Amino acid sequence: MALTSSPAPVAFLGPAGTYTELAALLACPEQPHLHSQGSHPLVPYPTIIACLEAVATGQQEWAVVPVENSVEGGVSMTLDALWQLEGLQIYQALILPIRHALMGRAKALEQIEQVYSHPQALAQCQVWLGSHLPQATLIPTRSTTEELDRVQTQPMAAVIASERAAALYKLPILACPINDHPDNCTRFWVIGRSQPKADLASPGGSHTSLAFSLPENVPGALLKPLQVFAEQGLNMSRIESRPTKKSAGTYVFFVDLENAPDQPYLSPKVIAALEQIAETLKLLGSYPVHDLSKQGGIAFPN
Amino acid sequence: MALTSSPAPVAFLGPAGTYTELAALLACPEQPHLHSQGSHPLVPYPTIIACLEAVATGQQEWAVVPVENSVEGGVSMTLDALWQLEGLQIYQALILPIRHALMGRAKALEQIEQVYSHPQALAQCQVWLGSHLPQATLIPTRSTTEELDRVQTQPMAAVIASERAAALYKLPILACPINDHPDNCTRFWVIGRSQPKADLASPGGSHTSLAFSLPENVPGALLKPLQVFAEQGLNMSRIESRPTKKSAGTYVFFVDLENAPDQPYLSPKVIAALEQIAETLKLLGSYPVHDLSKQGGIAFPN
Repeated sequence: MALTSSPAPVAFLGPAGTYTELAALLACPEQPHLHSQGSHPLVPYPTIIACLEAVATGQQEWAVVPVENSVEGGVSMTLDALWQLEGLQIYQALILPIRHALMGRAKALEQIEQVYSHPQALAQCQVWLGSHLPQATLIPTRSTTEELDRVQTQPMAAVIASERAAALYKLPILACPINDHPDNCTRFWVIGRSQPKADLASPGGSHTSLAFSLPENVPGALLKPLQVFAEQGLNMSRIESRPTKKSAGTYVFFVDLENAPDQPYLSPKVIAALEQIAETLKLLGSYPVHDLSKQGGIAFPN
Repeated sequence: MALTSSPAPVAFLGPAGTYTELAALLACPEQPHLHSQGSHPLVPYPTIIACLEAVATGQQEWAVVPVENSVEGGVSMTLDALWQLEGLQIYQALILPIRHALMGRAKALEQIEQVYSHPQALAQCQVWLGSHLPQATLIPTRSTTEELDRVQTQPMAAVIASERAAALYKLPILACPINDHPDNCTRFWVIGRSQPKADLASPGGSHTSLAFSLPENVPGALLKPLQVFAEQGLNMSRIESRPTKKSAGTYVFFVDLENAPDQPYLSPKVIAALEQIAETLKLLGSYPVHDLSKQGGIAFPN
């Protein structure tokens, strides 16, 4: 990926004010080992798949997508799209702390009849909502910010989104933080197009991600790839299974590995061993991880 | 679980007409090896968690909950609730074929402006919706049937639910099947309260389900339990990871095992080996599986 003189645009799940937009502002796709200056122009898309397709088809250079939340788990849409679309690769991971705020123009919590947000945000606040807003109907939306315009004029409606979203839309914050788990954080990936030799062209870094399907469903089938990782001393920081969608009971496994300290890529030996075992193997990239959840909060860019 | 003279009520995700209700009608909690007569009274609940809490607290005897869809994957709410709630156990699994129908009072597809359904159903029809209803806004609901009353009076709105739901609500079917994958099926579990010795009191059958967390995140940690299964010749028909919600990067693993043909329970030897390895081990039950997706369709009870 050649460095361009002006930063290339980044696709994100919009509209403005989502956590993904914040991740995109903080990401530094072209030089993932530096901290971003937030100078990439951002382009909102209505869905995660649309963001990734925009990169796969060359419409945009980069996409920032959520991968996993510490409370609600993997983001299926991201994993499925990365398995299905060709030519995409991970350049960077960003971990953001998540602080959910309830915002709207209600005079009191008792007045609120509907709460709008992304299903993951609703799920992450379910205990708080059950005890503070038992009367409210929870209405899932495609992003945390999709219904922010509605609450400008409807005081009986409220939205769960970031404090930054409240500031952007000039909405009063009614309660914050309202997430049930204080350590809530979300991991995002910066995705770009892959080069012909994916394992060499990716930026390299502390982690490698890959996905594979297995040729047969027999005792110990999954054991083989995990043995390859263990024999090489590679720690699996995550494994997640998703249905292949071809037939029931067949899965794609998504694995994140911690690279050895002196080895920013997966070794050709491990790749060759996996190619022997897997039905289909997809190397998704080796990349650095910026964990902003452990730095005592982040300064919100505007 | 003592057999009662009149069948005990079954909690399901309502309102009437959901796929879960159909699974509950076909389930036979007290005698899981027989085919059900559909004679259990059914009690609708607004969420999966409410169904399982109703059984855990003794309010209802049984709950039927979705576990996994062949296209969209695991149902996080069910897995998380089974890990968190105490004293629940699986008595039976049912696999149902899923045929989604679009229903409403629109005169033509072009007239439809909103499509309401459960997020999983919307996701399972995304390709069809993109090509046939590109103009429509997709609105997620808590169950496939939640907004069926709305479409009785709003011809610009449509719902994706089962053909049975259309019949129950006397709504015209506008298109069917509209699921992108014809082999779409969903697995349900019949859940009851566990007995003190869970591994002995469960009905026994072809499969065993369990969940475990691991004490440390080191190379090969997950390898150990998988080696136990492989050494005993037990095929893992599924593995799924969910965050523990305690700290990022720590997981609970949900595993389904195929029992050996002559062994309807997990052997005490395997259980003892797992107890040595796991931080927390939860035996969720050994039970029979009724696969209704391979019987050339099912007769819909009313």
